[in-house]
Amino acid sequence: MIRILVFGYGNLGRAVCGKLSSVKDMTLQGVCSHRAEQLTQQNTTGLRLPFFSPAQLDTRHSDIDVIINCGGSARDLPRTTARLAGHFCVVDSFDTHAAIPEHFAAVDTAARSGGTLCIVSAGWDPGLFSLMRLYGAAFLPEAQISTFWGPGISQGHSDALRRLPGVLDARQYTIPSPDAIAAARSGGKVSCASHCHRRVCYVVPKANADLLLLEHAIRTMPGYFAGYDVEIHFVTAEELKTKHDQLPHGGHVICRSPSDCAYPQLAELQLQLASNPDFTAGILIACARAAFHLHRKGERGCRTMLDIPPALYHARDPASLRAGLL
Amino acid sequence: MIRILVFGYGNLGRAVCGKLSSVKDMTLQGVCSHRAEQLTQQNTTGLRLPFFSPAQLDTRHSDIDVIINCGGSARDLPRTTARLAGHFCVVDSFDTHAAIPEHFAAVDTAARSGGTLCIVSAGWDPGLFSLMRLYGAAFLPEAQISTFWGPGISQGHSDALRRLPGVLDARQYTIPSPDAIAAARSGGKVSCASHCHRRVCYVVPKANADLLLLEHAIRTMPGYFAGYDVEIHFVTAEELKTKHDQLPHGGHVICRSPSDCAYPQLAELQLQLASNPDFTAGILIACARAAFHLHRKGERGCRTMLDIPPALYHARDPASLRAGLL
Repeated sequence: MIRILVFGYGNLGRAVCGKLSSVKDMTLQGVCSHRAEQLTQQNTTGLRLPFFSPAQLDTRHSDIDVIINCGGSARDLPRTTARLAGHFCVVDSFDTHAAIPEHFAAVDTAARSGGTLCIVSAGWDPGLFSLMRLYGAAFLPEAQISTFWGPGISQGHSDALRRLPGVLDARQYTIPSPDAIAAARSGGKVSCASHCHRRVCYVVPKANADLLLLEHAIRTMPGYFAGYDVEIHFVTAEELKTKHDQLPHGGHVICRSPSDCAYPQLAELQLQLASNPDFTAGILIACARAAFHLHRKGERGCRTMLDIPPALYHARDPASLRAGLL
Repeated sequence: MIRILVFGYGNLGRAVCGKLSSVKDMTLQGVCSHRAEQLTQQNTTGLRLPFFSPAQLDTRHSDIDVIINCGGSARDLPRTTARLAGHFCVVDSFDTHAAIPEHFAAVDTAARSGGTLCIVSAGWDPGLFSLMRLYGAAFLPEAQISTFWGPGISQGHSDALRRLPGVLDARQYTIPSPDAIAAARSGGKVSCASHCHRRVCYVVPKANADLLLLEHAIRTMPGYFAGYDVEIHFVTAEELKTKHDQLPHGGHVICRSPSDCAYPQLAELQLQLASNPDFTAGILIACARAAFHLHRKGERGCRTMLDIPPALYHARDPASLRAGLL
């Protein structure tokens, strides 16, 4: 049995705990959270989870094979994964693409000095989508590779809206352009991400907010909304809760040889996820299994999903996978 | 530079040779074929390839890093890959699913005793489709995983038609059922392969053939057409050549959580290939690169694509893949 600790108990941490109960080769040893005391008292999870605080983690070394770090990419993971990697094998879903090399280097250093094996930036993008981009680039070197996100809720963009002074709560849907997807599939020109995606915002304004000013602040926010086709709907807190409380997501990776190529070849991966955290949780659990087996084979340091032999994700042995799945 | 030998010069061997000319980290050292003398004399390839016969292979050990074995699964590969594996790193596309464990074991034994590293059953099914089935099974353990083939030419079924006494030439298109694909995507029940695919045959009969008898022989052929929805068109050799001389193929791997699941999740890989041999060739070349690097790291024995760390398929170094592709 692979003994798992879940670090962090937000949407992702809850999804990992929920899924682990039906994973036969793993046991959940506990959940580490800054809100441990509060969570233990509430006991609303239905699961009998031992919650404890990060300060209590030191004494648990011999009980834990892999930590699944379910913190957020903006503040938690850059701090916690490298620190934990000095003592534990850790898996995380760090998804700030531009900062991955720096995060990887910090975790690699800690893991090598601590003798652990970590997998960072696991999930679907980065993660399964990255694998598809790599397969496209390696198997169809002449292909144009395009990634589209959505329709789905972008948590980063929803957070950006919520940070505005006049906003009480918000959700942002990313919607890919059907024309851009069609162009990518037929080998045509695909323009940059901002021309291929619409951003639809559902915003609960504060009582005294100036809606015109708020709309202007959203449309001009650099790095998030400026340059995009943005649609803004002001709604009540009630409407946001009833109509927009799910976290669906998905997208496409389209690898297509150019239209003037001798053989038009198309390889496309599509995801339609009713629950983004639930799918990411499934991938993190499989990565925890791979990290455990790589570590047991003597490998040390940091890895991403680009480095993992796929058979290690599955609990079945290689011969049975060859016979049943290949 | 990775020095490649192509073994066999049919559709697949020609496609590999054609693509290798634009691969920057590889050189094509030559083509080994039983028809070496004839091919050298014809010299119709446009490429200046050194052709030589299998008997001349013994002396070439020091010139070759990896052999890409482009023989057929029915007769060539079960014989030649294991024999070559005793002396060379070899990659093949053995695709008789039921016989993979036996083929793998024979190649593994030869490769371990010869100190080589081989990758068998590479391509898109088995191959890229197997990877998608594995990802589905590992990341969405509750999902139903369905594979659909086509629309495209099945070379195995075309060969089966050509073996009939009354047949001069033939092509068989495999067409997946749109209803079955829709059912798989929506989490509904998907029946067995024979109910999910139509088989459309274009047959050039011999001059004296009894067409009614021939049609009966096709429809009742066990393992190939019996139990399938079969459509038969008798055509002239001229029509077959002009309208059916390409080798398109493709298909879908659909991973979908059951419809009664809390979160309907869908992951789908789709291929639309104008040239089946061309796409398979691209995968075999990437596998040759992976075999070379695994062998250089000291690994020995047989592998399949389920065992290969994806980054090894690409010529770029891991840090650059992380920065640019992850």
